[in-house]
Amino acid sequence: MAHPADRLMQAVERCATPACVGIDPVFDRLPGAVTGKTNTALEAVASFTRDVLEAVASNVPIVKFQSACYERYGSGGTVVLEEAVGCARELGLHVILDVKRGDIGISASHYAAAAARTGSDWVTANPYLGLDPVQHSLNAGLGAFALVRTSNPAGDAIQGQRLEDGRSVAESIADLVAEAGKDSIGESGYSSLGAVVGATQGAEHVALRARMPEQVFLVPGFGAQGAGLDDVLGCFNTDGRGAIVTSSRSIIYAWDDGNDPGWEQCVADAAAAFADELGRAVGLRT
Amino acid sequence: MAHPADRLMQAVERCATPACVGIDPVFDRLPGAVTGKTNTALEAVASFTRDVLEAVASNVPIVKFQSACYERYGSGGTVVLEEAVGCARELGLHVILDVKRGDIGISASHYAAAAARTGSDWVTANPYLGLDPVQHSLNAGLGAFALVRTSNPAGDAIQGQRLEDGRSVAESIADLVAEAGKDSIGESGYSSLGAVVGATQGAEHVALRARMPEQVFLVPGFGAQGAGLDDVLGCFNTDGRGAIVTSSRSIIYAWDDGNDPGWEQCVADAAAAFADELGRAVGLRT
Repeated sequence: MAHPADRLMQAVERCATPACVGIDPVFDRLPGAVTGKTNTALEAVASFTRDVLEAVASNVPIVKFQSACYERYGSGGTVVLEEAVGCARELGLHVILDVKRGDIGISASHYAAAAARTGSDWVTANPYLGLDPVQHSLNAGLGAFALVRTSNPAGDAIQGQRLEDGRSVAESIADLVAEAGKDSIGESGYSSLGAVVGATQGAEHVALRARMPEQVFLVPGFGAQGAGLDDVLGCFNTDGRGAIVTSSRSIIYAWDDGNDPGWEQCVADAAAAFADELGRAVGLRT
Repeated sequence: MAHPADRLMQAVERCATPACVGIDPVFDRLPGAVTGKTNTALEAVASFTRDVLEAVASNVPIVKFQSACYERYGSGGTVVLEEAVGCARELGLHVILDVKRGDIGISASHYAAAAARTGSDWVTANPYLGLDPVQHSLNAGLGAFALVRTSNPAGDAIQGQRLEDGRSVAESIADLVAEAGKDSIGESGYSSLGAVVGATQGAEHVALRARMPEQVFLVPGFGAQGAGLDDVLGCFNTDGRGAIVTSSRSIIYAWDDGNDPGWEQCVADAAAAFADELGRAVGLRT
């Protein structure tokens, strides 16, 4: 199987856009057309997930599943998530499992095995216990996006602190990621160890890009979280490559009337518009 | 329901020991008496977990489940973990779910809901995205141990770094935890926001204890990971309270011959000896 970063870059080239749709279904926000025909919250989440995947698959190359939205339903939710990853892959989508796990030793290898068995291509990983854990994901054949700089204000209290050597904590993690990723660089020039860099941290993007030239950036926070095109362009290398941008709520809830069976077309249209806007902005489409 | 820290302290007083057994079952290390009578790795893990819980329940007040050991088997593993937490509670054990989750906003609330539905008393949480996530666990009625200083060498690269104000990154997290925990202090004087502080970080224990006087410390790394009694006593307040110490491998694999059906008694004896050694060291037993 090809290198995770090479497969990801091929998916981006094939669709001529670095757009990723975040699948974060929350029962309270599901369309009436779905909740009206299902018996439980979990059934509704499962049905909605399949519908969204079918709606976006021909418009974007990548989806990212928020594991928490499924885990909240216990083992039944985990079954639905496993099925959803399988469905996404059958539809030809590249899959990121957003689990943000971080542990040590054998536990880290267990988490890597858990993600690998779903058939996902990439996982997200938390670096607070060090980057050894990430290595277990790479060893299991997965790509791993380490959390470097997140989009939430509360993260500033830790990630934004200044070290005595002048770097921020996030920059120090970036340097660790860049170094650790050197052993896993594919033909595309990118490493299978990538970095999560929030879209709302625009002021820091260029500096982080310079510190991590070989990392693919996974950039959440576009759309509903408040960031726009100008906020994310600093995450890309000068050739318009090296980052993927995730939008979740502004795509999956992009309908006016959830009771209208046409809601799925609204999601498809929103995904197409997002893919086109982003593809043009980075020069992959004209 | 009583406050999580109060319930934990009551459990410690009742058994006169702050000993916690870590349930981290790995198939390759299970006794032949278990693997010989089960058909799959997951069945063996489930059977071993029940046997260990029954062996330790009358000897220690608390168990900590390593979620990764179960999640590696996918949704089936999550079923086994849910059953194991229920079994532990029926046996009267106080339960910590070691999941180390860390996410933001609605995802953090989903993870809190996922842990609460298992019936666990506490979860572990990763602070790299800030402490807002921990609040969701507290809101769900759970206690939460934030990872402050872990026992693995790779954690030093992040947690041991020095900030420009002279504190280490771990100390800065400790200060955030101490402040955030002030709103959740029970009658015992301890907060339902606790801290994970690795047993192998003995040189830092007294300083971290001083920074977090109202936090219960969860101290992993005792026994097989190399730390002994002298290494953990600095985690306790002067009255011998305020910390619980976890030992995993040196208890659950404490037999010479796994084919001997007497392996369970070896586990029970090891748990009893651990409980007694620790109870005496902190002055809860004479």
